[in-house]
Amino acid sequence: MRIFTPATSANLGPGFDSLGLALKLYNEVSITEQKISSINIIGEGSDKIALKKNNTFVNIFNETITSLNGKSLNYKFNFVNNIPFSRGLGSSSSVIVGAIAAAYHMAGFKVERSIILDKALQYEHHPDNISPAVWGGFTVNIVNNASVYTQKADIDSNLKAVVVIPDEPMNTKQSRNKLPSHYTMNECVSNLSHAAYLSSCFIKKDYDNLRLACIDKMHEERRMSALPELFKVRDVAYANGALMSTLSGSGSTFLNLAYQDRANALAEILQAEFPKFKVKILEIDNDGFSIKS
Amino acid sequence: MRIFTPATSANLGPGFDSLGLALKLYNEVSITEQKISSINIIGEGSDKIALKKNNTFVNIFNETITSLNGKSLNYKFNFVNNIPFSRGLGSSSSVIVGAIAAAYHMAGFKVERSIILDKALQYEHHPDNISPAVWGGFTVNIVNNASVYTQKADIDSNLKAVVVIPDEPMNTKQSRNKLPSHYTMNECVSNLSHAAYLSSCFIKKDYDNLRLACIDKMHEERRMSALPELFKVRDVAYANGALMSTLSGSGSTFLNLAYQDRANALAEILQAEFPKFKVKILEIDNDGFSIKS
Repeated sequence: MRIFTPATSANLGPGFDSLGLALKLYNEVSITEQKISSINIIGEGSDKIALKKNNTFVNIFNETITSLNGKSLNYKFNFVNNIPFSRGLGSSSSVIVGAIAAAYHMAGFKVERSIILDKALQYEHHPDNISPAVWGGFTVNIVNNASVYTQKADIDSNLKAVVVIPDEPMNTKQSRNKLPSHYTMNECVSNLSHAAYLSSCFIKKDYDNLRLACIDKMHEERRMSALPELFKVRDVAYANGALMSTLSGSGSTFLNLAYQDRANALAEILQAEFPKFKVKILEIDNDGFSIKS
Repeated sequence: MRIFTPATSANLGPGFDSLGLALKLYNEVSITEQKISSINIIGEGSDKIALKKNNTFVNIFNETITSLNGKSLNYKFNFVNNIPFSRGLGSSSSVIVGAIAAAYHMAGFKVERSIILDKALQYEHHPDNISPAVWGGFTVNIVNNASVYTQKADIDSNLKAVVVIPDEPMNTKQSRNKLPSHYTMNECVSNLSHAAYLSSCFIKKDYDNLRLACIDKMHEERRMSALPELFKVRDVAYANGALMSTLSGSGSTFLNLAYQDRANALAEILQAEFPKFKVKILEIDNDGFSIKS
């Protein structure tokens, strides 16, 4: 079997730990039963020997399949890793969701997305990346009693993501440690009102109001100060047709959304202004992970 | 002319200072030009002489009409006040919105709802009551540069409000002073995720998930502790078919939403359990204020 799991962009400005979007950039894993276990990696991480010895995907896959069938067999894992590591594009969530869904499939169980998502929450305690990796599209997520509840909106195909991926990673934990433990009432109200408004924009396909909607007061500025060029990325994006420009997850990637007819020009301008960074145009994924037998 | 302005229920749980809903309970004001000014009040406030001497509606109406036409004339104001005072049903917002809209109409100006709303924001600094009083339905609101930006959703006619109105008022300012100046990151994330999820439920007409959506961590418990019977109101409502049960604004009213086929039974049970409180079944208003010439 082969499983494809999308990259994701979480937070989306005000939606801290709650909102996320899936992108058509996939990690692919093919798994076959075999006498002796083996791991092969193409792409991201292919140069890291540690990833062959202690591989998170393989560990979670084995744990899950053992919990379902009482045992795990030996498998050959071929990874094609397209999602960059530690750049705020949900590579960890892709691994977790992919491993659990693959294990359910290989164990002969029905792959129910809501179950996969709740299992994934045991490995990653915030739903904002794992949920769009499971469902695709734009998702609003709350956690209640160790379950994730999701409202999903499909995104129109004329909306494109223009992602700017810095050459330096940002460590999620370090990035989170920069944040204060408390927020003022005004900061709370700003984020909750904008998160609700942003969600309404996506559901109602009112993309012209995204820029107004995506203002955050909780985390972006503090995190972006670690890589101040990101402020310029946003300025250039907004000056050149971006509908929305937010830090992707905890960074370092910046997510810009633009209409199809502006996406190419925006990407070219961003690439020219920031030659050290990688600029990619990505479609929005509305389906979440997919399995091919 | 006559203007009808609806009651409103703000916050709706997690949507502190941002979300609101309009109800089919109206304050009605009829205004006619006359040689000598006069005020007549029926209903709420009819026993308060001060309201004839220093009337907020009349003051705002005169201010607004003077700002538009350079002068105000003398008018006869007939008030039919159906929205109770200081109970969290938006009576102040109804007065502010009604006075401004009436002034625009009487001054011969076009009554544009977005302009009325921005003017109203100068008198009431939170948009969560004034916005549904202007637009009707469910509204999500952000404030940017002294303007209110609204996403609106119409509510299905099979959804009814069963409001429980205590005999005691709650003072908005006092109620707000009970709240802390700072919130933990978890409280913030809980409210922003739930506010976004609740908004999605209303927009997508997924009313069955409202109960999960309406959980608040910022204000309700602290405010309800001033009138602990409200905790019982919520328990009884949820045990008897309420889809959602939240403090209305800063209280003291409790807003319960229920499907049409459960609303009567729910109202009867609540009235029997809380004989001192007034229980009313109200429809949702999807239109906002209306003017009849």
